[in-house]
Amino acid sequence: MLPFTVTARDPGCAARAGELETLHGTVRTPAFMPVGTAGTVKGIASWELERLGPEMVLANSYHLLVRAGLERVRRLGGIHRLMAWDGPVLTDSGGFQVFSLAARCRLDDDGVSFRSHVDGSEHRLTAEGAVAVQAGFGVDVAMVLDECLPYPVEAARAETSVERTVRWAFAGLEEARRLRDAGGWSGGLFAIQQGSTDPHLRRRCSERLAAGSFDGFAVGGLAVGESPAELHDMVAASAPMLPEDRPRYLMGVGYPEDMLQAVACGVDLFDCVLPTRSARTGKVFTSRGEITIKNARYAEDLDPLDPDCPCPTCARYSRAALRHLFLAREVTSSVLLTVHNLTYFLHLMREAREAIMAGRYCRFRALSEGLRRGGGAQAPREQEVGHGSR
Amino acid sequence: MLPFTVTARDPGCAARAGELETLHGTVRTPAFMPVGTAGTVKGIASWELERLGPEMVLANSYHLLVRAGLERVRRLGGIHRLMAWDGPVLTDSGGFQVFSLAARCRLDDDGVSFRSHVDGSEHRLTAEGAVAVQAGFGVDVAMVLDECLPYPVEAARAETSVERTVRWAFAGLEEARRLRDAGGWSGGLFAIQQGSTDPHLRRRCSERLAAGSFDGFAVGGLAVGESPAELHDMVAASAPMLPEDRPRYLMGVGYPEDMLQAVACGVDLFDCVLPTRSARTGKVFTSRGEITIKNARYAEDLDPLDPDCPCPTCARYSRAALRHLFLAREVTSSVLLTVHNLTYFLHLMREAREAIMAGRYCRFRALSEGLRRGGGAQAPREQEVGHGSR
Repeated sequence: MLPFTVTARDPGCAARAGELETLHGTVRTPAFMPVGTAGTVKGIASWELERLGPEMVLANSYHLLVRAGLERVRRLGGIHRLMAWDGPVLTDSGGFQVFSLAARCRLDDDGVSFRSHVDGSEHRLTAEGAVAVQAGFGVDVAMVLDECLPYPVEAARAETSVERTVRWAFAGLEEARRLRDAGGWSGGLFAIQQGSTDPHLRRRCSERLAAGSFDGFAVGGLAVGESPAELHDMVAASAPMLPEDRPRYLMGVGYPEDMLQAVACGVDLFDCVLPTRSARTGKVFTSRGEITIKNARYAEDLDPLDPDCPCPTCARYSRAALRHLFLAREVTSSVLLTVHNLTYFLHLMREAREAIMAGRYCRFRALSEGLRRGGGAQAPREQEVGHGSR
Repeated sequence: MLPFTVTARDPGCAARAGELETLHGTVRTPAFMPVGTAGTVKGIASWELERLGPEMVLANSYHLLVRAGLERVRRLGGIHRLMAWDGPVLTDSGGFQVFSLAARCRLDDDGVSFRSHVDGSEHRLTAEGAVAVQAGFGVDVAMVLDECLPYPVEAARAETSVERTVRWAFAGLEEARRLRDAGGWSGGLFAIQQGSTDPHLRRRCSERLAAGSFDGFAVGGLAVGESPAELHDMVAASAPMLPEDRPRYLMGVGYPEDMLQAVACGVDLFDCVLPTRSARTGKVFTSRGEITIKNARYAEDLDPLDPDCPCPTCARYSRAALRHLFLAREVTSSVLLTVHNLTYFLHLMREAREAIMAGRYCRFRALSEGLRRGGGAQAPREQEVGHGSR
């Protein structure tokens, strides 16, 4: 198993700082993982990514499978070579995208068959196959195949789905053991808690998964359309159900306030397309709240996006210059705003970690949220749209 | 006038190395200027541009005018602030884009009226106004307004057009003098030789322009559809017509072999969208010839784009990884190939300069062309399409 140490606990809540050791480096938690869908964080060269300094990067098995295929990624030297990134990489199993992107998705007891949304080619992912694919990519952390449910969903369907997800998790664990014993892979495998918005179902799922020697546990199936309040309630209920001595990963979340709340509940890892996708639509995260760069009020604003931000975009470009580039549809705008937004998310988690180490996480969280609420806040949170990102 | 010194001459041809001093630094020639259309080289953050180390960057007055306007650029602190780039900037006058992009373009003796291709707004550029706009942007080198003719064109129209271009050049020079005397600007102004493919007309144009105290002279109206052979003949005939003691700029050119030939004829400055635009379509320039990255032969090619290239793309990404990103339509592909292609163009001109300083330019040119011809060359030059870039 991947060594995981909790190095500090906050006295005021369940927040903790930890270190997860992988073959490509130590992941200091809490940590936000930028999303590098098909082998790159959109618009970001790997040397730029290195400067941003994420602890771990997420890539999507589904996209890598349908765009390149296992054999090709393997022959190219694996996922790290493909991404030109030498740090830790986590991949999702592909389940989420199969259910949301692929065509003619057919679920059965052993896995899921589907057609690529790119070229219509047929593929099949089984519980074992999903782990074998990720191991073949050479990832540092693989995720088990899980069934992702829509929201809301009937209780009976959620129950059947949880049964299947648990069965798949253990089949995946068996496959991981086989692959490690064969000497071809030394990554970790995380299980995924499902159960929609039913705490009892999530508890049952967690208890059964906890019996397996997984390297970590994720909360899945949230941030798929529920309100922020529901999301926070579900995280508060679900995170503590996961084993205390393993990293906890909240998949596809989220907004800064969601992450800070989840950290307070003992969550260690996050991923979300929010900072990168928002950058492409001109939405900017700052320590004083969110701003929409195309707004006329920034037309002649010579201030940086965020006076407290250490990123090169803030060091060099005014809001007005960024607005001009955004309105001129220059792709440089996406690059610059992505660098800023990722810096903000990564910096927030670094600050959270430092606050936990210093035993002042609750104060840090309150201050950070106060600043964000008081600052910009002219771009209201899009509550109606799920921001799940996997 | 901007100080210009010829620091070395090649013994075997008219190639020369020079230094043009501007307020934002010395431009060592021969030099290639990356094109930063609306205030950015597409996809390239200014800190990345700095690392690429161009001597001077080109921006398009037309795009800046219709996307931002003079007053806004001025209030944002000028073109350098807008681009977050502290090195030399040259702008074209906008003439080329007015004739090629704008709607309802109406030419008269004093200038040209047109509607923006973006929002239909009405604009007018006069010979004086074009210089005032560029001075207002705060550029280091401005270009006079010129009339850009289609290719081919009737002799009579070319003649009238040359008359107009010369008249406009001197009106622009008068305006530049006025602006400099008023203390608002200390940039240089380049005149533009026109005359289509008629050497006599070009000579007449050059002789008349040479009477003005312009800071440099450009060859305009080439690379607009003529064959490479015609282009080379016209450059060989036209460049020596321009004053020996001022920088010579071949606008919108071109392919590596075009630049090397023009350097041999005594040209000092170049700009072209070729390296940046090609990057976005997956066409790559290397010391061994051009390659089309999407070709199946690169699917599992673990070599860098160019083994002799010092750029970070070549240091980190294999051809196969770049092909994958291109086929996955990841914008990172554009960024990585732009960094490479610009490195190639900038490096080629740096090597040309060194060769001239060492008195071995002819051998350098022959070796460089031999390598390119012998190497890849599976992507034939697109002779049918003009690659003019202004």
